[in-house]
Amino acid sequence: MYEYSHGGNANFEPGKENIIDLSANVNSLGLPAKVTDAIIREIPNITSYPDSFSIALRGKTAAFEGVTPHWVIFGNGASDLIFRLPRAIGANKIMVCAPTFADYERSALSYGAEVCHYFTSKDKGFGLDEDFIKTVEETKPKLVYVCNPNNPTGRLTGAGLIKKLLDCCQHIDAWVAIDECFIDFAREGKANTSKVFLKDYANLIILKAFTKMFAIPGVRLGYALCSNETMISSLYFHGTDWAVSNLAQAAGIAALDGGEIFVAQTVAYVEKERKVVADGLASLGYSVFESSANYIFFQSPFSFDLRSALDTKGIRIRSCGNYHGLDGTFYRVAVSTAENNKKFLDAIKEISIGR
Amino acid sequence: MYEYSHGGNANFEPGKENIIDLSANVNSLGLPAKVTDAIIREIPNITSYPDSFSIALRGKTAAFEGVTPHWVIFGNGASDLIFRLPRAIGANKIMVCAPTFADYERSALSYGAEVCHYFTSKDKGFGLDEDFIKTVEETKPKLVYVCNPNNPTGRLTGAGLIKKLLDCCQHIDAWVAIDECFIDFAREGKANTSKVFLKDYANLIILKAFTKMFAIPGVRLGYALCSNETMISSLYFHGTDWAVSNLAQAAGIAALDGGEIFVAQTVAYVEKERKVVADGLASLGYSVFESSANYIFFQSPFSFDLRSALDTKGIRIRSCGNYHGLDGTFYRVAVSTAENNKKFLDAIKEISIGR
Repeated sequence: MYEYSHGGNANFEPGKENIIDLSANVNSLGLPAKVTDAIIREIPNITSYPDSFSIALRGKTAAFEGVTPHWVIFGNGASDLIFRLPRAIGANKIMVCAPTFADYERSALSYGAEVCHYFTSKDKGFGLDEDFIKTVEETKPKLVYVCNPNNPTGRLTGAGLIKKLLDCCQHIDAWVAIDECFIDFAREGKANTSKVFLKDYANLIILKAFTKMFAIPGVRLGYALCSNETMISSLYFHGTDWAVSNLAQAAGIAALDGGEIFVAQTVAYVEKERKVVADGLASLGYSVFESSANYIFFQSPFSFDLRSALDTKGIRIRSCGNYHGLDGTFYRVAVSTAENNKKFLDAIKEISIGR
Repeated sequence: MYEYSHGGNANFEPGKENIIDLSANVNSLGLPAKVTDAIIREIPNITSYPDSFSIALRGKTAAFEGVTPHWVIFGNGASDLIFRLPRAIGANKIMVCAPTFADYERSALSYGAEVCHYFTSKDKGFGLDEDFIKTVEETKPKLVYVCNPNNPTGRLTGAGLIKKLLDCCQHIDAWVAIDECFIDFAREGKANTSKVFLKDYANLIILKAFTKMFAIPGVRLGYALCSNETMISSLYFHGTDWAVSNLAQAAGIAALDGGEIFVAQTVAYVEKERKVVADGLASLGYSVFESSANYIFFQSPFSFDLRSALDTKGIRIRSCGNYHGLDGTFYRVAVSTAENNKKFLDAIKEISIGR
């Protein structure tokens, strides 16, 4: 039977209702108060169908992203758009990196596409380089995914390499999907976003979400940016007309009000707390990989199951054993509130010392 | 470019913000107050991912429907599940009646399936009979849709014919999807629901929604019933893990509290008001078809565009000219509040008299 494979669901397990769930990567600065107010104000309108084209939200998002509203399409989370993408492209061969977010592969398999994996290596810090471009050129997929920064590794791919990928894919008539759901958490995000390529590359799709930055995973709100209006149209065709609820649209509009300031505060906060957690882990003997996101990817030198051990201390982290290219010694932990981060470090210290 | 083809979106048109929208079929008894309260109570939880398996909501829905929780799967509206269905089945040939809800065909085309239409006729009141079963047997599709009662005609298909369809499809190794999103509005719904066949037919899927009965189209909440657990598993695989928002799950749980009483009140109300509207339309010379739903399907004897004419009076109805098998003389109008129904009848009388 179908099994859930992601983090973020610890609290639905019997007896785990109060666990500190660091297995999902949601902004620990929390929910902006105006989002709550906007949802409450919107409730009387739920007796009507939502706007299928999210017109008000698209306008606000386009201004936030610095693009035209016609380049924006909303979905029931970015994941909804990922599931539409293979059909919208007609992509019978799809290339995904490993390790990375599982839905690229699952949506490809759902469409019946052949999936080609590009394995990044620990030696290179799980980063992409020219070898990736060469492999794409040889493999000739119809769609290539790059998660930037990558989930679960936190590794950022520079804009220079993305441009080479776009050129290569234009040459082999392939689409490039850059998942930037975590890029706004990175100080170096602004310099490396693929948004600058949208105008010149009609084969580029950028995926983004409100889920992580604005801490509303329970609302479901993601979007894609693409300058190719035929693709935008196709993405609409391949999904339900009412994918984005009234409440999600209202929440998104409210979240973007003062969004730039909230993002800047988040970047500073994550940078500071990420260093605290990374240093703490390193001091206990864990191998910590450099992260440009609001989570930390690390490898344990110990043979015991760290996730289970932390569970007994009331903290849940993400075991990365079910990612292609990784084994059970790799973990991901969210950078949370200072209080939660301290609890995590105290707990892992207690577990690790003397092992 | 992609164009919206359904009703229910009038208020998003510039200048139509205050139009009385009778082009969507939402319960006019309105939103139960406890649903509003439940959504407000749930807001603090939107910083966590929703339960991918909607465990609490499934339990409550299973009790409401009289089935086991394992037979229930929730989606982002029934439409989300309709889009998953062709992939979950691997249905390369799909049979849809005409006229009917457009998403069966669109989701089939999205998968790349061949679509076969079975045209019902005005002579038979757009009803299905043995000829349909015969055609299914000859056509040998992998999936057949029956909307019961049908949208836009309101026509109910009896349980006897559905049983014959299930037997026929078992024989030709095909799936049957019965869309019962409107069946609870019908007094004769209880006697004709296909739920009684779930246990014995592993090739049956029933589609249902909270959208219409509980008047929450803006929240997005639909579900499917199926006794075949491999199919339930496959439906999970072919969609996003977080299809149903926290707010939708909370709204659904609250709506079902006292749900039977609300449904019974609705049935009585719709029956009474439907007769008022149907009689009014008939007295003006319109051909009214028998409806088992909360809307009325009718044909105009006049050549003018009734939808546009009513628009100028501040009322929007659904023109059925874009359904296969119909032309611009057919219309659908929701049975709304007594006040709206009177406004509609007054307006259409003013427009029609003397034509």
